[in-house]
Amino acid sequence: MTDMVPPPSPLLDRIMAIVGPRGILTGEDVTARSCDPFRHVPPGSPAIIRPASSEELSRILALCHDAGQPVVTHGGRTGVAGGAMAGTDDLVVSLERMTKIIEIDPVTQTAIVEAGVTIEAVQNAAAEHGLLYPIDLGSKGSATVGGTIATNAGGNRVLRWGMTRPNVLGLEAVLADGTIVDLMNRFLKNNTGYDLKQLFIGSEGTLGIVTRAVLRLAPLPTTQNVAFIAVPDYSSVLELLTSARSMQQLSAFEVMWRDYYAVIAKHDPQRCPLAADQKYYVLVETMGMDETADEQAMQGFLEKAFEDGLIADAVTASSLKQVQDLWRIREGSELLVKEMGPFISFDISVDIRRAEEFVDTVYHQLDAQFSFFKAISFGHLGDSNIHIGVHIGPDTIAREAEIEDVVYGVVRQFGGALTAEHGIGTAKRDHLPSHITAQALETMVRIRNALDAERILNRKMMF
Amino acid sequence: MTDMVPPPSPLLDRIMAIVGPRGILTGEDVTARSCDPFRHVPPGSPAIIRPASSEELSRILALCHDAGQPVVTHGGRTGVAGGAMAGTDDLVVSLERMTKIIEIDPVTQTAIVEAGVTIEAVQNAAAEHGLLYPIDLGSKGSATVGGTIATNAGGNRVLRWGMTRPNVLGLEAVLADGTIVDLMNRFLKNNTGYDLKQLFIGSEGTLGIVTRAVLRLAPLPTTQNVAFIAVPDYSSVLELLTSARSMQQLSAFEVMWRDYYAVIAKHDPQRCPLAADQKYYVLVETMGMDETADEQAMQGFLEKAFEDGLIADAVTASSLKQVQDLWRIREGSELLVKEMGPFISFDISVDIRRAEEFVDTVYHQLDAQFSFFKAISFGHLGDSNIHIGVHIGPDTIAREAEIEDVVYGVVRQFGGALTAEHGIGTAKRDHLPSHITAQALETMVRIRNALDAERILNRKMMF
Repeated sequence: MTDMVPPPSPLLDRIMAIVGPRGILTGEDVTARSCDPFRHVPPGSPAIIRPASSEELSRILALCHDAGQPVVTHGGRTGVAGGAMAGTDDLVVSLERMTKIIEIDPVTQTAIVEAGVTIEAVQNAAAEHGLLYPIDLGSKGSATVGGTIATNAGGNRVLRWGMTRPNVLGLEAVLADGTIVDLMNRFLKNNTGYDLKQLFIGSEGTLGIVTRAVLRLAPLPTTQNVAFIAVPDYSSVLELLTSARSMQQLSAFEVMWRDYYAVIAKHDPQRCPLAADQKYYVLVETMGMDETADEQAMQGFLEKAFEDGLIADAVTASSLKQVQDLWRIREGSELLVKEMGPFISFDISVDIRRAEEFVDTVYHQLDAQFSFFKAISFGHLGDSNIHIGVHIGPDTIAREAEIEDVVYGVVRQFGGALTAEHGIGTAKRDHLPSHITAQALETMVRIRNALDAERILNRKMMF
Repeated sequence: MTDMVPPPSPLLDRIMAIVGPRGILTGEDVTARSCDPFRHVPPGSPAIIRPASSEELSRILALCHDAGQPVVTHGGRTGVAGGAMAGTDDLVVSLERMTKIIEIDPVTQTAIVEAGVTIEAVQNAAAEHGLLYPIDLGSKGSATVGGTIATNAGGNRVLRWGMTRPNVLGLEAVLADGTIVDLMNRFLKNNTGYDLKQLFIGSEGTLGIVTRAVLRLAPLPTTQNVAFIAVPDYSSVLELLTSARSMQQLSAFEVMWRDYYAVIAKHDPQRCPLAADQKYYVLVETMGMDETADEQAMQGFLEKAFEDGLIADAVTASSLKQVQDLWRIREGSELLVKEMGPFISFDISVDIRRAEEFVDTVYHQLDAQFSFFKAISFGHLGDSNIHIGVHIGPDTIAREAEIEDVVYGVVRQFGGALTAEHGIGTAKRDHLPSHITAQALETMVRIRNALDAERILNRKMMF
């Protein structure tokens, strides 16, 4: 695989001296990779540097810093905001050789890992000790601990366990100038100075490269109950959510607008246990430790909801197979592609009291702006997070900016968030200044300048 | 109360023009206050400035910034790390007139408040909507939202709901130069740029003054079950903790070393339901929503623990009165004062696998260093947090530095944390550099310089 010919650059020569031939990919080993999970966008970078340790990375970044060489960091390259895009002036650094699971401890319920390890590998190792690393992503087989920390990844179970941020107790990061900052805290409580790790979580690799982490684990749930519910109106969805929150086992509350459910029902009717004649479809999931009590809790929740007239119809599942089948309704992105062709996807947060009005307004304005459109809406409503997909015909991609202007205009009008969980990357960089205050942006610039005045790290990301 | 005579300073004159006479305290209104919750330490500051709004505070800080006038922020002044200490060169700013609860919303389960409101006032307002703000502090009647955000306050129920940090969704802060930064996010998920609020949480007012906040609320538990347990050895304590963690209702796991329990039993035997003949005493609490299931969970936990031989003796409580009585064992600080006289208290985190060895080592080294000592140990073991009180006789306070050198030496040896929840303030400032790496300290300095190069805010705090 590896091109053994020394690359034709004094900087790369010096880097080669640090990492050895296994530590540099060039040629087809670079161009065969993609910076985008959906289409092939090879890195423009002449090489991919693969340090084997924090110390190697530190020396590499010190060289790049001295040379003014911009660096783009690659994790699992599963992000959808263009955070892995690398141009010809960039040098890509990947931590794919730093995948050690250093320790899983069942007493402190922590994992110590290198940043290149995948989420799935951590979860599998934790499960052997009866523990859960609760970040739940479709891409968990590729997404890395480092990448998910850099992007503060979310997923389906944020309602219960939070995004990546609260699940990271400590980390080690290498700054743009090569300084290694050891913040490998293992404690739930530690107020010894600024909590610097928070700087690196969610800053998309612009303030430092995360090389190791201490993760907080949870007891592995032994029960999983799912209800799939047809709901006649939005106020009933909100009442259901409030009621569901009283179940301490609640682990997901996913809402699908009828347009979403109808697409799944059209292309794979087998998947859909309920008629597509209601306005909303809700997937409620609990995960717990007590089979009887957890099943009773879900049954009690559903009975009360029926009595209160919140539910048109519902099915439940508790076997793994049935549970997976119900989740497949929510995870029907391949059917969306089939129905919608090219579409622009949005990942916004909005005040859930106004989410119905928000989506209606988006559709109304798309209708006013374009001669034709199709849209689907769904999301992690328990987290305020809605995903919308918009298609306006064959020129959907060409007119992406117009579609974004419509949707983000409504987001601003409703005081929503530009991105809930996908991040800014390169894709939303131009939109950021119109979704936060000038004072907030200026403060972000001050922080970035304090740690990377030369903009060595992920130069084109975020702002 | 308010001294209406204009204070004799051009800067104070200008501030008076902003805040009006109610906005400035001078003379006895200043000296009657204390910067320390345990002994009377009046502020040296000639005045206490009390802005009525973020805008007033912004104008005040802009003036102070221009004049190079250092500012010390006062919340409820309940902190025990000297974070409210103000010298004659300082000007004290208090947000005590900014106490509005702007909104409590049961659908999004959020509270929007001004920073001067007390934790108790927020909790009472939330409870009216069936909601809980879960930060649990003995000082909650005085401690403010702003002060607890600045210090990332912890307390008894961190194991379940986390410290202050994860319970803050958004905030507004005023920077040293008067810039108002609006970060009033209301969403569980928001990756729109750096999560700047994290900078202000736990930075003890050195990066900005928090003026408003969006707090995350939880459904108010309706059940509370407490078990008070005598445990023969430390390995059984750890097994109990792992077992207790499987109860999703678990809200506290407090451990008292025998020396602590013996003091309570000596001075108030009525308070103590179990003989003081075991090595450890554990208070396990659950809070939930289902009376039957929650009581069964606690009973099942205890029965299994008895079967496994982890427990010497135990009592349980579920009525409010009984629950409070058992908590009074853990909250016996007035009896500690009676027994110990003056003592130096420590608030450290340590790997719980080695907590017994850690405490034994501390005692051993105190014994080697001093001709006489008494110590008590207890803490939030579920959070890795141990409090130790040390008395070495009448010169305990005079020899504080020697006692600290012994204890903090062992903390370093065990890789523990200098402070778990109390913070650095002025009290631990000199110890900070020997408990974090030089690179971490340098990074903190870079961040502080980026936001407050002139060191206007809490100049003497932290580092």
